[in-house]
Amino acid sequence: MTREEIITDLSFSTDSKIVLLVLDGLGDLPVGGETPLESARTPHLDRLAAEGACGLTEPVFMGITPGSGPAHLSLFGYDPTRYLLGRGILEALGSDVAVGENDLVARGNFATLEGGRIVDRRAGRIPTELCAELCGRLNRELESVSGATVRLYPGKEHRFVARFTKGGLSEALRDADPQKEGRPPVPAHALAPEAEGSAGIVNAFIDRVTEILKDTPRANTILLRGFARYPEIPTMDRLFKLNPAAIASYPMYRGLAKLVGMSVLEVGPEERDLFSALEANWSRHDFFYVHVKKTDSAGEDGRAPDKLAVIEKTDALLPRLLALEPDVLVVTSDHSTPCSMKGHSWHPNPFLIRAAAAMPDEVDRFSERACGRGYLGRFPAMNALPLMLAHAGKLSKYGA
Amino acid sequence: MTREEIITDLSFSTDSKIVLLVLDGLGDLPVGGETPLESARTPHLDRLAAEGACGLTEPVFMGITPGSGPAHLSLFGYDPTRYLLGRGILEALGSDVAVGENDLVARGNFATLEGGRIVDRRAGRIPTELCAELCGRLNRELESVSGATVRLYPGKEHRFVARFTKGGLSEALRDADPQKEGRPPVPAHALAPEAEGSAGIVNAFIDRVTEILKDTPRANTILLRGFARYPEIPTMDRLFKLNPAAIASYPMYRGLAKLVGMSVLEVGPEERDLFSALEANWSRHDFFYVHVKKTDSAGEDGRAPDKLAVIEKTDALLPRLLALEPDVLVVTSDHSTPCSMKGHSWHPNPFLIRAAAAMPDEVDRFSERACGRGYLGRFPAMNALPLMLAHAGKLSKYGA
Repeated sequence: MTREEIITDLSFSTDSKIVLLVLDGLGDLPVGGETPLESARTPHLDRLAAEGACGLTEPVFMGITPGSGPAHLSLFGYDPTRYLLGRGILEALGSDVAVGENDLVARGNFATLEGGRIVDRRAGRIPTELCAELCGRLNRELESVSGATVRLYPGKEHRFVARFTKGGLSEALRDADPQKEGRPPVPAHALAPEAEGSAGIVNAFIDRVTEILKDTPRANTILLRGFARYPEIPTMDRLFKLNPAAIASYPMYRGLAKLVGMSVLEVGPEERDLFSALEANWSRHDFFYVHVKKTDSAGEDGRAPDKLAVIEKTDALLPRLLALEPDVLVVTSDHSTPCSMKGHSWHPNPFLIRAAAAMPDEVDRFSERACGRGYLGRFPAMNALPLMLAHAGKLSKYGA
Repeated sequence: MTREEIITDLSFSTDSKIVLLVLDGLGDLPVGGETPLESARTPHLDRLAAEGACGLTEPVFMGITPGSGPAHLSLFGYDPTRYLLGRGILEALGSDVAVGENDLVARGNFATLEGGRIVDRRAGRIPTELCAELCGRLNRELESVSGATVRLYPGKEHRFVARFTKGGLSEALRDADPQKEGRPPVPAHALAPEAEGSAGIVNAFIDRVTEILKDTPRANTILLRGFARYPEIPTMDRLFKLNPAAIASYPMYRGLAKLVGMSVLEVGPEERDLFSALEANWSRHDFFYVHVKKTDSAGEDGRAPDKLAVIEKTDALLPRLLALEPDVLVVTSDHSTPCSMKGHSWHPNPFLIRAAAAMPDEVDRFSERACGRGYLGRFPAMNALPLMLAHAGKLSKYGA
């Protein structure tokens, strides 16, 4: 039996409640001796660390820096090397584009074509408003191509998401993007025989768009890349018998949660809104994924004081969560985003689990290095979910 | 995707430089309370441990004592349960015998045949000089058998390596060795239909040798075992986009390095020679494997004071390495060789990584037990390579 089959086989539904609180990109490196998490005043997190068991998680395996997709799938109990999400899907999820079973999505750029060559892959980074205007025009003038419905969703500057809808579309397509400037456009070449039809549709679409935009300054063609269909991924209900809900305000995380079958709850943009949504929906679900985004944003921008402030703000809100008395509470991160690196990194994530049956260790501070001395040791993040199920009494015995 | 595919997919070449310093068989057990590494005065290693992150590596998995082959493959980033090296190959590499794609190699013994039975599998441990003389004679009188070129390479006492060269040879052969004395000789039985031809060649060769040596006292036949072809193993360049060099003076380690595509550099026999070779070739490669052998030799002989001396000598030479300012430095061992056991063991290896993005932990001594308290925890040695690539900025993000 595979690990997944074992967990699926053993899991059963109960009334006990699990909260998985993810502080995105929390893990960091020392800045002047201490990490933002080490410097922050976090009385509630520290008490939880003291009462619970701590450790460090590896999102994929040692040395691998994960994107948000694999990092979250791992925390949701999925093997991130088995379930892969195409870039187009993540971009679509991040842009709040609904993606269904008959959809093929891709990331798009408006670009500049001159004398048969792509001279600017970003069309001079046209204003976001112009991008929205062009997408609107194309959606009106070009509803379908070769039997496929097509819709463009504008993003920032020159970026958009394209969605093709038709039965039997294939994602086995090479990018319709020369990758470098000064080269002629390249069509979406089929990488497998079953993708020939999809290549034809995509290329006909690009040709029609280029015809429509021929007199538009700068943005007179498009590039498409990262073709992806909706991934085949079993729901958390099927795998773990959970009735899970996502409390996250950013589109990508809402999309990821939807992908694994979570109910995506309405929530405002502030940290306090997350806790309000938790309180309002407490009786309706047995698993809550709560996502704090701004720790990651601060890390991406290298703003250590801001990261520390988000951590302290979240800590101060924890009594609201604790008042709900979850049976199992996990606080962790999906991946590290060290301020010194201004991006995701491979460093492991601090992890704490507080539950009646959690072994209290000597860790009494919630931080990267304190958790490194914890009872749970260093473990793959995909083990966090079975650990939560176990502590919640939702896993039966394996074998007699 | 497999672990190997993921790393291969994410790795890219940069100018940053990695040094992997291997003190062979370094790990040990306490002799009077402390291990040789714990007793040794190692100010430079201790400073590196304090500045970097420490842990313990498992060469294969818990409880498994590795040979030099799997222990090194693991450190070079290869799954030691996937890539297996036949004993004949290791023996050939250790004897500095060149092995190519059309070669089949085996370990050989001169033996004593009497009354149709092998009465001494080691021919009374004939002197090394006699072994060389017999190999020379057979090489002159018996250049080829059934279309295969054959060459013997003398080893110590009764031992030698036999190399058969011909297209299409197979290693699926049972040992031509009765394993116990007092039994009749056994031929090299084919274990697969495609090995019939190879069995015929090997057995014809043994018959011819036995004919030639019929009047030689004691050494009047040979036994062959551990048949192995050159293994199919991808290079480190292909897997990790590295341009690696090996600085090792012992044949087996030079051979292992060549097997994975390293440039094997010229180097003298002393520890200081390793560092001279590193300095002389610093600009030419981005990955250096530096191998100190004598820690293992001392362990094999149970000479703890000598092991301590080699450790201290190596430590004293480290400033020469540090002056080169490697971006990533790892100091570790391939396997443990406790003096009390006089052989390889399954104990994990102390490991330190010093790099800009390494998390400094509270470990400030480089030793088995101090590393056991390190931030990296206990991990499979094959993860060391991706960890080095990550710290060197040679791995891109996994997934979006």
